[in-house]
Amino acid sequence: MLSRFIGLRRFFSSHSKNVRVAADKRTDIVFGANTDVGKTLVSAGLVRAALRRNTVHYVKPLQCGGNDQEFVRRHALLQPRPSNALSAEILFQWDTPTSPHIASRMENKPQSDKHVMEAVNKVLVETTNRSGPVTTIIETAGGVLSPSASSPNNTSARHATSETGWGWIPQADLYQPLLGQTPVVLVGDGRLGGISATLSSLESLLIRGYDVTALVLLETDYDNVSAMREYVSRGHKLRAGNGETLFSNPNDSVMSLPAIPSDPQVPLDEWYGSDAVKERFERLDDFLQQSWEGQLLDLQSLRCTGRQVLWWPFTQHSQVQRDNQVALVDSASQNDLNVLVDGTDGICLERVSMKDMSGSEGTLGIGHGDSSLALASAGATGRYGHVAFPQTVHAPAVALGQTLVGPRGPGQGWAKRVFFTEDAASGMEAALKMGMKTYIKRMREEENESIEWVICGQENSYHGGTLGVMNATEPSFFNDGQHPWYECKGLFLSVPTLGFRNGVLSISFPEGSELEGTQTTFESIDHVLDIDARMISRKLHSQYRELIEMQWLVYEHSSVNKKISSVVIEPVLSAVAGMSFVDPLWQKALIAVAESRNVPVIFDETTSGLQRLGVMSGRDILREDPDIGVYSKLLTGGILPLCATLTTEEIFETFLGEDEAMAMLHGSSHCAHASGCTSALHALHAYDLLSEHSRKAKVSPRMLSTHIW
Amino acid sequence: MLSRFIGLRRFFSSHSKNVRVAADKRTDIVFGANTDVGKTLVSAGLVRAALRRNTVHYVKPLQCGGNDQEFVRRHALLQPRPSNALSAEILFQWDTPTSPHIASRMENKPQSDKHVMEAVNKVLVETTNRSGPVTTIIETAGGVLSPSASSPNNTSARHATSETGWGWIPQADLYQPLLGQTPVVLVGDGRLGGISATLSSLESLLIRGYDVTALVLLETDYDNVSAMREYVSRGHKLRAGNGETLFSNPNDSVMSLPAIPSDPQVPLDEWYGSDAVKERFERLDDFLQQSWEGQLLDLQSLRCTGRQVLWWPFTQHSQVQRDNQVALVDSASQNDLNVLVDGTDGICLERVSMKDMSGSEGTLGIGHGDSSLALASAGATGRYGHVAFPQTVHAPAVALGQTLVGPRGPGQGWAKRVFFTEDAASGMEAALKMGMKTYIKRMREEENESIEWVICGQENSYHGGTLGVMNATEPSFFNDGQHPWYECKGLFLSVPTLGFRNGVLSISFPEGSELEGTQTTFESIDHVLDIDARMISRKLHSQYRELIEMQWLVYEHSSVNKKISSVVIEPVLSAVAGMSFVDPLWQKALIAVAESRNVPVIFDETTSGLQRLGVMSGRDILREDPDIGVYSKLLTGGILPLCATLTTEEIFETFLGEDEAMAMLHGSSHCAHASGCTSALHALHAYDLLSEHSRKAKVSPRMLSTHIW
Repeated sequence: MLSRFIGLRRFFSSHSKNVRVAADKRTDIVFGANTDVGKTLVSAGLVRAALRRNTVHYVKPLQCGGNDQEFVRRHALLQPRPSNALSAEILFQWDTPTSPHIASRMENKPQSDKHVMEAVNKVLVETTNRSGPVTTIIETAGGVLSPSASSPNNTSARHATSETGWGWIPQADLYQPLLGQTPVVLVGDGRLGGISATLSSLESLLIRGYDVTALVLLETDYDNVSAMREYVSRGHKLRAGNGETLFSNPNDSVMSLPAIPSDPQVPLDEWYGSDAVKERFERLDDFLQQSWEGQLLDLQSLRCTGRQVLWWPFTQHSQVQRDNQVALVDSASQNDLNVLVDGTDGICLERVSMKDMSGSEGTLGIGHGDSSLALASAGATGRYGHVAFPQTVHAPAVALGQTLVGPRGPGQGWAKRVFFTEDAASGMEAALKMGMKTYIKRMREEENESIEWVICGQENSYHGGTLGVMNATEPSFFNDGQHPWYECKGLFLSVPTLGFRNGVLSISFPEGSELEGTQTTFESIDHVLDIDARMISRKLHSQYRELIEMQWLVYEHSSVNKKISSVVIEPVLSAVAGMSFVDPLWQKALIAVAESRNVPVIFDETTSGLQRLGVMSGRDILREDPDIGVYSKLLTGGILPLCATLTTEEIFETFLGEDEAMAMLHGSSHCAHASGCTSALHALHAYDLLSEHSRKAKVSPRMLSTHIW
Repeated sequence: MLSRFIGLRRFFSSHSKNVRVAADKRTDIVFGANTDVGKTLVSAGLVRAALRRNTVHYVKPLQCGGNDQEFVRRHALLQPRPSNALSAEILFQWDTPTSPHIASRMENKPQSDKHVMEAVNKVLVETTNRSGPVTTIIETAGGVLSPSASSPNNTSARHATSETGWGWIPQADLYQPLLGQTPVVLVGDGRLGGISATLSSLESLLIRGYDVTALVLLETDYDNVSAMREYVSRGHKLRAGNGETLFSNPNDSVMSLPAIPSDPQVPLDEWYGSDAVKERFERLDDFLQQSWEGQLLDLQSLRCTGRQVLWWPFTQHSQVQRDNQVALVDSASQNDLNVLVDGTDGICLERVSMKDMSGSEGTLGIGHGDSSLALASAGATGRYGHVAFPQTVHAPAVALGQTLVGPRGPGQGWAKRVFFTEDAASGMEAALKMGMKTYIKRMREEENESIEWVICGQENSYHGGTLGVMNATEPSFFNDGQHPWYECKGLFLSVPTLGFRNGVLSISFPEGSELEGTQTTFESIDHVLDIDARMISRKLHSQYRELIEMQWLVYEHSSVNKKISSVVIEPVLSAVAGMSFVDPLWQKALIAVAESRNVPVIFDETTSGLQRLGVMSGRDILREDPDIGVYSKLLTGGILPLCATLTTEEIFETFLGEDEAMAMLHGSSHCAHASGCTSALHALHAYDLLSEHSRKAKVSPRMLSTHIW
């Protein structure tokens, strides 16, 4: 049960061949702070130095005009190394000496990102599976954010697109699937203005998650290398996404190269042959090798250290006896996790790209590693840091509030207020307080001790690990025995679920409640979700309603002091120990019962909301408004914790009064943190695009995870 | 009471003069993607266009060699405008045509950031308080991240420093205090490679929170403007930190200028005078003005919209009747919030920089708007997006775990395990489950229904708004009446607090518990915190202990079925409705009582931990190890929600077993989110620097907030 819940089986098998991750299979990727800063010069020098020990493969994935591999061959391959010690290739080539996105359009030779990256990956699989030590040097084209090739197949929301529809992305986005296993050498700009150019391109690489191992600059009169060393030696060190500080040894990691002859006609053989230049490149190669080996040691110990120091949720640690039971995720890109697994040789690691099924079931809305999302989130941190929220406004919080209750938000048509918390459990705890207090007010009841206020919910629900939401579920694996304070605070109804039985989509009724003579099979999910059509014959709805009425009556009458004061529904998707698909018609019937009794309805849409079901809220399927709705998981595009509890104005007004103690005294320091709010605005816009896309394509509502571009 | 709690009085009065924020007082700041991309050219054109309507003030804060204000005067000021329509000034000047950080060192003419920004602010106060419409154009020097001037007074952890100790920061960091009220015109790079340079510098501005309103490029053969328009028109639009999408009108906001004469000897009068150039600059000025007015309208409505749509925590909304009761925070920088308040004229807004007291009491550890923190956080998003955590490792989570239990972490010496949650309440709920279950196991008790497991805590505590932690406090304003499920689950002891009475630091004992003949006044806080010295005479400790023993006995005996199964302590600082300073000797005595009864001790250090008291954990003051410690607020440098519950191996082992249901089934989707973990690593390193700094300066432990550089 637990293993289902925690999604141990969350990885599909790999959809590409494994890349070996080994000390003698180092791959560097060379980026430039600009065009014409000496990328090929550095690549050739690096190839030459690496050839001291290893065979070397040089790759130029995208080449527009010229031929860098010839330059590299000419300057790198020296006697006495045999000529087959060096292999070099250009993967895609255009004649026009301009940016690849232009050249591919002008020459009508498109190359999609997918195609380019498949070719790059093929090279990596081949080189890392060669016997013997091999160094691979990948040289990018232009600056870090220079465009990739364009293609009519580059059509995702992250592609910049011309009127003719040929899209491109910046190269640092293109190569992002490689990150982690390809340490970056950034060739900085040694000229006047070069400090800014170098630092900015470094930042662009960092926000995309790259390991930038070394920074190399060609010397000019400006001594930019000293400024860079001063910068990376600050107290607040630059830190990469994997948590490591960068450039801890500035003398090795930030390096200058002697100036090249100012006359471009002078050949560079002499420069490469000089002791100073040779010494620098060899030092650079040694440093890169050392860093790579250190990084591998760290990666190899990560699962073991994790097992020693981490306490995972939903994990019986006594069952995690071996490192290979732990998933080592080194990076993620779009829908994939890059997982390192033990290699077939029993020594090395191997890198596997796997579909992120756990994310798809929860947090993966906009794809991993989207630079626009990382940038938006960082922008909010840069602008606000964090601002304490009570009685304060900042633009992202207000805009997010407006969006959530606005025409395209989940609260459209019913919600007026947004209450922020940090996570789904806390947002649901707030919802329970709001719902129960509102019922008490509606019924003009006193909160006297003789009445026990309870809720009515669905069986097999999970709303989080805090006590209030534990109490809002029936006794189960997840609470019984977990907490001495756990008490089942309500009536929890068994639910009719939908699933395929013998290939037919049909309703399974809870045991003992078989409903006779009702339609229980469906042609498609769309038919199940078409509540309007299903309400034409109201029979099943009435049966459901009667059944619920009866259970409710029995419950309240068998324990006279208990009073149901809120109904909690997880619309359509119920998420405990996997997902189950609850008949929305039954939920509609439950809402009818609640309404007839003036009991507020809470939608826990932390899993199902925000386009997970192809609609922003289950309201659009059930065609019933809740009083309170709770949204989380996908809210920030999955990257940060944030939760929004939406309510009607009536619920809000329950907490108004003369008395300060009547106010909602629920919150914590990071309430409505700016990064979360800005990320959420970005993600909600992406989901909007998605639903527009579905509408245009006349695709019926589906799970978001199958839709990610 | 509420107003104290929510920190309505959290703002000190302004420490600088107000800047008016008005439609006819627009200030633009011109940044360049590089040196020599045409910043001064664009500034002059913009000044010229703005002079159509307004008087204009041009400012070059830092000038090294040359004289840009002469160029601007020459090309911008045309008949028939009177010559006093344009004023122009250079604030700080060096002769050497190089980067300011070099020029200031070479010429031995330092200028500190503080000094430069005071001068810039003075200009803004003067120009925005002029009568009549005025446009101010601030032109930066070099590229966005080109260094500022250096000075021996630039010594913070964000300063890059030479061996001689003269520090500098990138210019985009220098001007960050202005953000929000100074829309940026970014002059891009129209040359080959310029797409990358332009995009990277744009990203550097965005992660620092700037509003980048317009992008201007000088035309060359490469048509970079088309690429930029394609890029900003992507589905995943660029989004600024304030949540707004950028460049929604690419035809106006991304603009090219006709190429300038290739011969640098040809004067530019003709170019500026041409219809095409004039038209572009006038369009740019119109667009900037329009955007500025739109932005002001948004800002002016923000408090009202916020009041309509937001539901603030800890706020009795019926008492918030007017917009001016709401703080409008437009940005934050270092220790200051930039707050917009109603101007004295009753129409405009004014911008006030205020010390962030609410942050200082909670989340402000590393200062607002630190670019290294924004970058680290974004890097983690770029690299991992989010990775589901159960049975998974990623580098930042493991590294953070190691750091927290490592030699400089709060768990040093006692904690072995780290359990992550999203916020302090959830982390404390986990701690309570852990503590109580461990006690039950220690005592080999059964969890039978006849025993009610309770806790012992301090009066006047607050651990969050979820039910479990509400139950772990005595009935009060914050729970009684808030939740029908609230039950007081324990013994809550009145605490002796410390404060100044008639100028003397002394202990206030709870009513009815005056302890006779004990030392109750102290020379300094250091004396209060020096537990070793205070333990030499054990008298007060013994008195405390006896008192606690007695209360404990009375409690357990008066209700035979209640059993105290955990003790919860907020070391030294207790934070409800403001902070109170609890006598640590009393807390030490409480721990002694707990230990004698085998009851686990939980430190709620969510407020007091992580250097807030000059030590990582109250353990270093109390000289007692807890079994469980909870850390949040400052953990991520304050920017993101994250909480770490640290435990001993014994506590962890309580949850081991054959049975999956024995595991800790507590958690939510964003557990150990990578951004939070990487930010925390960054912040903890900063706190390390801080404590080193204090040690070197022989400063005694103090509140972190007084220490921020």
